[in-house]
Amino acid sequence: MLTIHHLGVSQSDRVVWLMEELALPYKLVWHTRGPDGLAPASYLALHPAATAPVVQDGDRMLCESAAIVDYVCHTYAGGALTVGPDRPNYYEYLYWMHFNNNILGLFFSRLALGEEANGVVAGMVQRREDGYARMVEQTLAGSPYLAGEAFTCADIMTLYCLRSVRMLGRRDNMPNARAYVDRLSQRPAYVKAMTIAGPTATPPAEA
Amino acid sequence: MLTIHHLGVSQSDRVVWLMEELALPYKLVWHTRGPDGLAPASYLALHPAATAPVVQDGDRMLCESAAIVDYVCHTYAGGALTVGPDRPNYYEYLYWMHFNNNILGLFFSRLALGEEANGVVAGMVQRREDGYARMVEQTLAGSPYLAGEAFTCADIMTLYCLRSVRMLGRRDNMPNARAYVDRLSQRPAYVKAMTIAGPTATPPAEA
Repeated sequence: MLTIHHLGVSQSDRVVWLMEELALPYKLVWHTRGPDGLAPASYLALHPAATAPVVQDGDRMLCESAAIVDYVCHTYAGGALTVGPDRPNYYEYLYWMHFNNNILGLFFSRLALGEEANGVVAGMVQRREDGYARMVEQTLAGSPYLAGEAFTCADIMTLYCLRSVRMLGRRDNMPNARAYVDRLSQRPAYVKAMTIAGPTATPPAEA
Repeated sequence: MLTIHHLGVSQSDRVVWLMEELALPYKLVWHTRGPDGLAPASYLALHPAATAPVVQDGDRMLCESAAIVDYVCHTYAGGALTVGPDRPNYYEYLYWMHFNNNILGLFFSRLALGEEANGVVAGMVQRREDGYARMVEQTLAGSPYLAGEAFTCADIMTLYCLRSVRMLGRRDNMPNARAYVDRLSQRPAYVKAMTIAGPTATPPAEA
């Protein structure tokens, strides 16, 4: 059984969502951020990179949520929620599996720049953000899910970006993204996962 | 035949490297950055996201280098240089295919913060950078390539990060990464690709 090392308010809620979609059993271990907002020492000891989430699979410690969700689907669910190279939408699946990290990179850049930034770097960030927003809107104008007609890991990866990251959330010109977020947020597995491990969930009381 | 829309000094040199490794034909179209360092209008018109590279495959315009290289290997080279879900190192392959965008996110954050930054965001960025550096060193201590015993797209994706991004380049405690970069930089396909489209290559004279 997989163990999800869950860092409060982090990307690790996506793996919980995946496990609920697949109806697979898992153990959840909470790690609470310190007063500095950073991961505690117990979390850093898990993995050399120690980004969130860290998932334990036997004696292997896995990092990087996009890699984890695809690996879990193939290893424990016969490839469900993935798209293989033999399918016409394989490229689209790959594109959206990578989209997430681009958005997070922009998010950190925004944090670093501050809200009122101008100048060359701010211009680069703004241009990227505009491009990504166009890409989301155009894609969702043509298909119900990001990789095509079916819900996949690409949706699990990207919903977090659309919900949690201010850069898209504060835009008022993304009607397709808003409708998509509203629709996916009602999936029973998502609702359950957010109750268990979402940004407003609280750790279980100590035994 | 694929057309690689190459933006000078960008990630698009990776697709050129891939095509040389696979000995596949391609057409290269140069787009030169404007005086502001940004992509020109001709480039922005290619794709809604318009990140570099953009690769044209028939009537499809492809973006996101990690997605492109994996897709090209499967579509035109029978899956060469990729690792499939049936292999024991599938997760490792996925991990390193995603690593690249994390490093670039940090790079933009560094640009945004400036060299002398302190504070919470700078602390988060530094911690991530330290973790990624540890991950690279530990992985290359145990295997010749990032995803294991064989050269794969994961190496093509990551070499750019190790060579071009200051955050790792300025560290003096990464002997494994340095040896790896030196070794991979001597691959004939890499040398040829950098001559054609690397950061110091120049566009062909107008006909």
